[in-house]
Amino acid sequence: MGSIVADNRKSLMLFSGRGYPALAEEIGSVLGVAPTPMDAYDFANGEIFVRYRESVRGSDAFVVQSIMQPVNKWLMESLIMVDALKRGSAKRITVVLPFYPYSRQDKKHRGREPISARLVADMFKTAGADRILTVDLHTAQIQGFFDGPVDHLFAMNILADYVENKYAGRPMTVVAPDSGRVRVAERWTDRLGGCPLAFIHKTRDPLKPNQVVANRVVGEVEGRICLLVDDMIDTGGTITKAAEILVDQGAADVIVAATHPILSDPATERLSNSKISEVVVTNTLPIEADKQLDKVTVLSIAPLIGRAIREVFDDGSVTTLFGGLS
Amino acid sequence: MGSIVADNRKSLMLFSGRGYPALAEEIGSVLGVAPTPMDAYDFANGEIFVRYRESVRGSDAFVVQSIMQPVNKWLMESLIMVDALKRGSAKRITVVLPFYPYSRQDKKHRGREPISARLVADMFKTAGADRILTVDLHTAQIQGFFDGPVDHLFAMNILADYVENKYAGRPMTVVAPDSGRVRVAERWTDRLGGCPLAFIHKTRDPLKPNQVVANRVVGEVEGRICLLVDDMIDTGGTITKAAEILVDQGAADVIVAATHPILSDPATERLSNSKISEVVVTNTLPIEADKQLDKVTVLSIAPLIGRAIREVFDDGSVTTLFGGLS
Amino acid sequence: MGSIVADNRKSLMLFSGRGYPALAEEIGSVLGVAPTPMDAYDFANGEIFVRYRESVRGSDAFVVQSIMQPVNKWLMESLIMVDALKRGSAKRITVVLPFYPYSRQDKKHRGREPISARLVADMFKTAGADRILTVDLHTAQIQGFFDGPVDHLFAMNILADYVENKYAGRPMTVVAPDSGRVRVAERWTDRLGGCPLAFIHKTRDPLKPNQVVANRVVGEVEGRICLLVDDMIDTGGTITKAAEILVDQGAADVIVAATHPILSDPATERLSNSKISEVVVTNTLPIEADKQLDKVTVLSIAPLIGRAIREVFDDGSVTTLFGGLS
Amino acid sequence: MGSIVADNRKSLMLFSGRGYPALAEEIGSVLGVAPTPMDAYDFANGEIFVRYRESVRGSDAFVVQSIMQPVNKWLMESLIMVDALKRGSAKRITVVLPFYPYSRQDKKHRGREPISARLVADMFKTAGADRILTVDLHTAQIQGFFDGPVDHLFAMNILADYVENKYAGRPMTVVAPDSGRVRVAERWTDRLGGCPLAFIHKTRDPLKPNQVVANRVVGEVEGRICLLVDDMIDTGGTITKAAEILVDQGAADVIVAATHPILSDPATERLSNSKISEVVVTNTLPIEADKQLDKVTVLSIAPLIGRAIREVFDDGSVTTLFGGLS
Amino acid sequence: MGSIVADNRKSLMLFSGRGYPALAEEIGSVLGVAPTPMDAYDFANGEIFVRYRESVRGSDAFVVQSIMQPVNKWLMESLIMVDALKRGSAKRITVVLPFYPYSRQDKKHRGREPISARLVADMFKTAGADRILTVDLHTAQIQGFFDGPVDHLFAMNILADYVENKYAGRPMTVVAPDSGRVRVAERWTDRLGGCPLAFIHKTRDPLKPNQVVANRVVGEVEGRICLLVDDMIDTGGTITKAAEILVDQGAADVIVAATHPILSDPATERLSNSKISEVVVTNTLPIEADKQLDKVTVLSIAPLIGRAIREVFDDGSVTTLFGGLS
Amino acid sequence: MGSIVADNRKSLMLFSGRGYPALAEEIGSVLGVAPTPMDAYDFANGEIFVRYRESVRGSDAFVVQSIMQPVNKWLMESLIMVDALKRGSAKRITVVLPFYPYSRQDKKHRGREPISARLVADMFKTAGADRILTVDLHTAQIQGFFDGPVDHLFAMNILADYVENKYAGRPMTVVAPDSGRVRVAERWTDRLGGCPLAFIHKTRDPLKPNQVVANRVVGEVEGRICLLVDDMIDTGGTITKAAEILVDQGAADVIVAATHPILSDPATERLSNSKISEVVVTNTLPIEADKQLDKVTVLSIAPLIGRAIREVFDDGSVTTLFGGLS
Repeated sequence: MGSIVADNRKSLMLFSGRGYPALAEEIGSVLGVAPTPMDAYDFANGEIFVRYRESVRGSDAFVVQSIMQPVNKWLMESLIMVDALKRGSAKRITVVLPFYPYSRQDKKHRGREPISARLVADMFKTAGADRILTVDLHTAQIQGFFDGPVDHLFAMNILADYVENKYAGRPMTVVAPDSGRVRVAERWTDRLGGCPLAFIHKTRDPLKPNQVVANRVVGEVEGRICLLVDDMIDTGGTITKAAEILVDQGAADVIVAATHPILSDPATERLSNSKISEVVVTNTLPIEADKQLDKVTVLSIAPLIGRAIREVFDDGSVTTLFGGLS
Repeated sequence: MGSIVADNRKSLMLFSGRGYPALAEEIGSVLGVAPTPMDAYDFANGEIFVRYRESVRGSDAFVVQSIMQPVNKWLMESLIMVDALKRGSAKRITVVLPFYPYSRQDKKHRGREPISARLVADMFKTAGADRILTVDLHTAQIQGFFDGPVDHLFAMNILADYVENKYAGRPMTVVAPDSGRVRVAERWTDRLGGCPLAFIHKTRDPLKPNQVVANRVVGEVEGRICLLVDDMIDTGGTITKAAEILVDQGAADVIVAATHPILSDPATERLSNSKISEVVVTNTLPIEADKQLDKVTVLSIAPLIGRAIREVFDDGSVTTLFGGLS
Repeated sequence: MGSIVADNRKSLMLFSGRGYPALAEEIGSVLGVAPTPMDAYDFANGEIFVRYRESVRGSDAFVVQSIMQPVNKWLMESLIMVDALKRGSAKRITVVLPFYPYSRQDKKHRGREPISARLVADMFKTAGADRILTVDLHTAQIQGFFDGPVDHLFAMNILADYVENKYAGRPMTVVAPDSGRVRVAERWTDRLGGCPLAFIHKTRDPLKPNQVVANRVVGEVEGRICLLVDDMIDTGGTITKAAEILVDQGAADVIVAATHPILSDPATERLSNSKISEVVVTNTLPIEADKQLDKVTVLSIAPLIGRAIREVFDDGSVTTLFGGLS
Repeated sequence: MGSIVADNRKSLMLFSGRGYPALAEEIGSVLGVAPTPMDAYDFANGEIFVRYRESVRGSDAFVVQSIMQPVNKWLMESLIMVDALKRGSAKRITVVLPFYPYSRQDKKHRGREPISARLVADMFKTAGADRILTVDLHTAQIQGFFDGPVDHLFAMNILADYVENKYAGRPMTVVAPDSGRVRVAERWTDRLGGCPLAFIHKTRDPLKPNQVVANRVVGEVEGRICLLVDDMIDTGGTITKAAEILVDQGAADVIVAATHPILSDPATERLSNSKISEVVVTNTLPIEADKQLDKVTVLSIAPLIGRAIREVFDDGSVTTLFGGLS
Repeated sequence: MGSIVADNRKSLMLFSGRGYPALAEEIGSVLGVAPTPMDAYDFANGEIFVRYRESVRGSDAFVVQSIMQPVNKWLMESLIMVDALKRGSAKRITVVLPFYPYSRQDKKHRGREPISARLVADMFKTAGADRILTVDLHTAQIQGFFDGPVDHLFAMNILADYVENKYAGRPMTVVAPDSGRVRVAERWTDRLGGCPLAFIHKTRDPLKPNQVVANRVVGEVEGRICLLVDDMIDTGGTITKAAEILVDQGAADVIVAATHPILSDPATERLSNSKISEVVVTNTLPIEADKQLDKVTVLSIAPLIGRAIREVFDDGSVTTLFGGLS
Repeated sequence: MGSIVADNRKSLMLFSGRGYPALAEEIGSVLGVAPTPMDAYDFANGEIFVRYRESVRGSDAFVVQSIMQPVNKWLMESLIMVDALKRGSAKRITVVLPFYPYSRQDKKHRGREPISARLVADMFKTAGADRILTVDLHTAQIQGFFDGPVDHLFAMNILADYVENKYAGRPMTVVAPDSGRVRVAERWTDRLGGCPLAFIHKTRDPLKPNQVVANRVVGEVEGRICLLVDDMIDTGGTITKAAEILVDQGAADVIVAATHPILSDPATERLSNSKISEVVVTNTLPIEADKQLDKVTVLSIAPLIGRAIREVFDDGSVTTLFGGLS
């Protein structure tokens, strides 16, 4: 009579923020589990309220939230959801962020700036998150901002399979839209079997920081399909300017592959008016109906995230699953 | 030659979020110091960027932010401002929140809910805040949510002075709009020299939580000016319904005193259409031009906050200043 | 041969401080598990020593301690018990506090005071507690003082069932003994089917803080049974003074329902001499033999706590069990 | 107008718990500063309340508390005092513990025990203490339990000066009362110019832990004054038994030097009845009037503590002051 | 479809640092599990890299590392291994340190010193260790430096069994090599059935700290086998000097028992040249081939550690296993 | 007599690890303050001991340590120095790391790896460091690994001034030795007035990670001086292979600019044998006498670090000093 002994089963529960429920539903379909019903609404002054309709006690909880406009609202909702799980005695809490917010503020570019990407990691820790699962961080170092395990997935295989199939046999150059993305572009050239690499060199006046004086292409692009690769398309300025220069330099065609379709205004207009013939993205973020374009192809990230969640739950290997890179 | 010795002076710097710069300016005028120039803007996808234009190294920093609609944006901006101060080597960081956000979610009302007011306190701590200075918390226990000093100011004296002057000599009853605010109303009766006290008793069906079945007045109101007191007016529903019942019960007149004018829609319309003859508030939150009403009197909170900041900087006594209550 | 795999069973163990072992035994009976044998004694100078006689490794440990006089001793014993469990490799530690100590110091009433209720929460966290399970906190906000899950149980149903049965059919008014407990009293009126509500309004001279000048009843009590409700009875001063005024105002009878029978001197004498006809309490705290009165009815809290512990162990829902409120 | 610049002075404030105010007063006299007035009392159920009567904002605070019977009460009072200082914006908080409580529980002697001395250190850290200043820890390793600076003072010089003066010229052996204190006794032999060293060897049956079978003297004591040295005298059992054996072995006289006079019952009776001719202690703890004996000499620790506090405040060297040992 | 439920099995995995793989292999044999394959090497500048070749997700991980020369390298490697386990989602991480590094710096001997043994404990906590398992700490208080469970094993039974068998029937005295180890030696006398106890008294000039003036034997050694006991043999200076004095005082023979054979130069030479006839140690640390002596007997610690790991994994009792002392 | 008030002066003290004392001396000369005398040595088994010879109480401490071979030793020494400062009551502790160790392990390149650069930051925080001051981090994101202010200095101006002077008027191309350093190289082109940019594109077989198949130059280098820029030269493999290819592609001359001269074997041999005509570095790390080459020019980093320390002490602006970038 000294103790009560019982089987110790584990139970995966999925939770969806209001940011992009369709993606969470799709991930749930992959897993075979529906998001747990939740009451969530905004008070009149904009404060968010959430409450789960079912017990979350002892669960292995995965909170899925796509953090797009209004970024701060969906970020705060995720934090509140984590807090409610912690106080409701969930056993382990993994935050699934298909797109990690504030990832571009990952360092002080100049003095007296915040490092907001670290702040975001710390806030999730403070709220009670044990783990983060995310896709294509702006810089991989952000993994180190979180004091706990980060499962970092890559969409490159999904995007590259599509590009390879569609553009097989045509001479291609992978192009980085700026000097900071050349390393990523190099990974693409390896994935695509060793094709050439180029990038756009921006010249700045050191006395006027952040102001670009001129753009030049470094690398060989003439007569080739140029595949511009990036982690995200925000306003599309960088990518469409790059496309223009590439066409000026004699590129045969310009296509774009990017994981996160933020598509802030005026991205849609810019892409529409640009000489880019196709833009391939995933659905880590939703694309509003009025921003959809024929030239934009959306591939689903749900199978990748779903399989990763299942491996995490089963204590399997995420590394093995995704080619040794996560 | 063993060490370099220097005088150790201290320096008060004021920082204003973009939520309600006019209040920060007014506080600055009281103090005789302007808010430090700052670059702050939203990226296209809504992520916030801030950068101080002057060195903040070694400063005793006070970050003033009124957190109203969109709440999560201004909350996040405050956190980012604190992070930038921490990383810029400010010596001490006090967050001045005239209105503390998420203060109504200060407990789990039912199971599986967050305690967002605690989460907010922890997030400020995580970002780097050493202290909080705030006005009229929804419940005083929120002081205990922050792991550090909280200077809690009260607007009652400001509001009560005005009411006493204007309505001197008329028979008054202080009325709490619901059972949870009777303690606060009792403080008003003491402040106003011992006038009667009443409150609105709401009846709920225990099988239908959160649904009010009936409202009754408990206490004597007939033929008297009823002073409804509350910490905030959000949509104005509670207060205007209370006013109606009071009038039904024979109140001679109904006036309202509240610290925080949130005035979410349809507050303005409700107040305008109500039998309330005057609403006295402070400017802890701004009132947009199209929400201003003749019957709403706004008293400035800036002198109180300014004096408190000065006492904090000078290691004086905030308690003494505000009647022994903070 | 890469790893040793084993079944992962879980094991509930119960631990009883020396404060009120009879309650822990009773909870153990409900659960069907005896408290784990422990050596616990005071050294000559009052320092406490504890040692468990059986291995606690891997257990889901519940430490039950009723913290009454001498409060600081039993509080410290609980902390030491938690430390010994942590260092003895218990897997999860839940502190069961039928009465949460220092709950009345949940805010700074004036400047330069501690917030001891937060300090208590932090000390349990520091010692190694993962969770707290408690009954009828003085204010619900104390849940937010602990950085982890708090299961907050309510004794109202137990007390109200008894009152309803015994006093069925007689006209009743629920009375809050002071302005700060009106919200709690309102919950009782809902539970008792919508009966009237009253409270005692205390008038203070603002120049002499904490000194009550006069007490008045607000609400209708004449000819009715007055049910005074409170969370605790300490010295009984508030409650017996309230009873007197109610009788003066024509109450037909006065009864009291309260969860925690602290009964510090001279509570027993006061209750005995008062016009209160019955006092209903629970046994969250023991009542010493010489303090027992015929007019005091004690209902057991053990079934409620026992069922809650079982739900926590089984990852069931405590919310469901107790009417959606915890 | 960008900032307000002011001189940054520092201010030492002394705070006294209710444990042993006379010592705090004496330390205050050494320093030339009186303890800050404080309201402190026990509620009826034993919960402690404290409030400072003057602002503590910005102060360099020293909290003096002698923690004797009831140990847990005075320990908790110290923690609450620290919490009130933290929330009252003291700049730095040093806890002065002339006697560190729970110092004998500095390790797990067997399995499933707490390490209460570490718990005490963590609780002070959690409450808000920045530093600890203490005298003659039971084991010096306890310094390492606190995550911050510990100023560790030694009373040996005070005690040894007295012994040297009084017993000059007589053959002396320093005796450790048990095997664990031989290192400390060795320090005394060095201090006293190289006299012989002995100790009491206790034999235990390994099958009956903690039960001593026999005591033997190891070392030369015949015809010599035996100076038994220890850090504390609790019930006096060890020291009086040791004295008996020493006399049996032909000691000419037995005297005792110890820092902390806990003197729990029946210490006074035992010392009185023993063959010990003199007991020299300090006043780190008070000796109640009815426990004072002619053969007990009390030397004041206040000058040592007072000078150390001054050095800490002035950023001087405590090490230099006390012979390079702290 | 609300959740996915699965069995929750647990899995023990063993990890070996590069410090002394043979011991980890031997522990693995006891357990029946091989250390998990790992890539570990030094970059050209000495930075260490580690990577596990198999998934560690969800494992109950035990990291075995013997920390000998170069101490800081193997210490850092252990920390990096723990970090990689934490980020690789191991469920629980126990660091197995047969020899705890920096254990002699467990207090400030004088002012302005570090407490490196605490620093080591904190670094393991920071890296992600949940538990520590170690053998014969220099002082048992080091257990309290770690904020979590420490399983403290003792090699005395292993060493004493050997000594009892080999030297049965001969008159023996246990000797502590200095005053700080008398308590440990006393435990040996109990284990060996109550034989006499002696120690070496070192005399220091108080004006020249750390400089020993003379050594004397206290206790009876003439004509007896002297068993010098210590936790470690570093350069062998203390132990060989003690042996010399013992022989001078007429000891029949001198043997040594110590847990940790650090054997820094010139230990081997000193032991070889000394009058010590046998040195019994364990293999908590490796002895390089060129340091092995015929008179040094090495007993394996692997069975003890292996059984302890198994008990930890199985939630059994380490205390029971090792005679109630851990 | 309520408090003792004193002037609050601040005092800069410099501390030098044993890694590269000449640099600390040089920084001390710039500042006009000598490093504080310290006893530091290795125990026989390699454990490090440090003790300051002067009081550090209240100081604004700057610990300078160049962390080169053996990296783990000097890293551990720095941590121990910080611990001793913390326990010795230093007021603020800044760690000055001219070269940040483990900076290349700033992310998980594949699964089951550590993020050692974050571990290093956390260890410094745990030991007690308040701030870090460092030069040319391998990736700027490492700033975000430390929970506190990081002053990040850049050596580019020092190196570029030299290059500009010496090679003025000759056609130059800045070359990144691999795709990950193109962004850094781009900053150099801006600094040098807009010259062309090139980089070495490495082709990998995706099935054989980390194995380079081919190197190609992307960008225009023929007939131009190629300035290879990097943050560090470790074994020199990357840089000398890059130089070879550049010469093959017709470069007129190849020179190298890098901040950190790690120069692990066989760097010196490789540089010596290479076609690189000049290598410009700083002295963030020492170059051993037998590794010095005529073609290696060493510029001092001491003035930059010295001025930065002074600004930090004076609460000046490090940003202003170094061109708005820190």
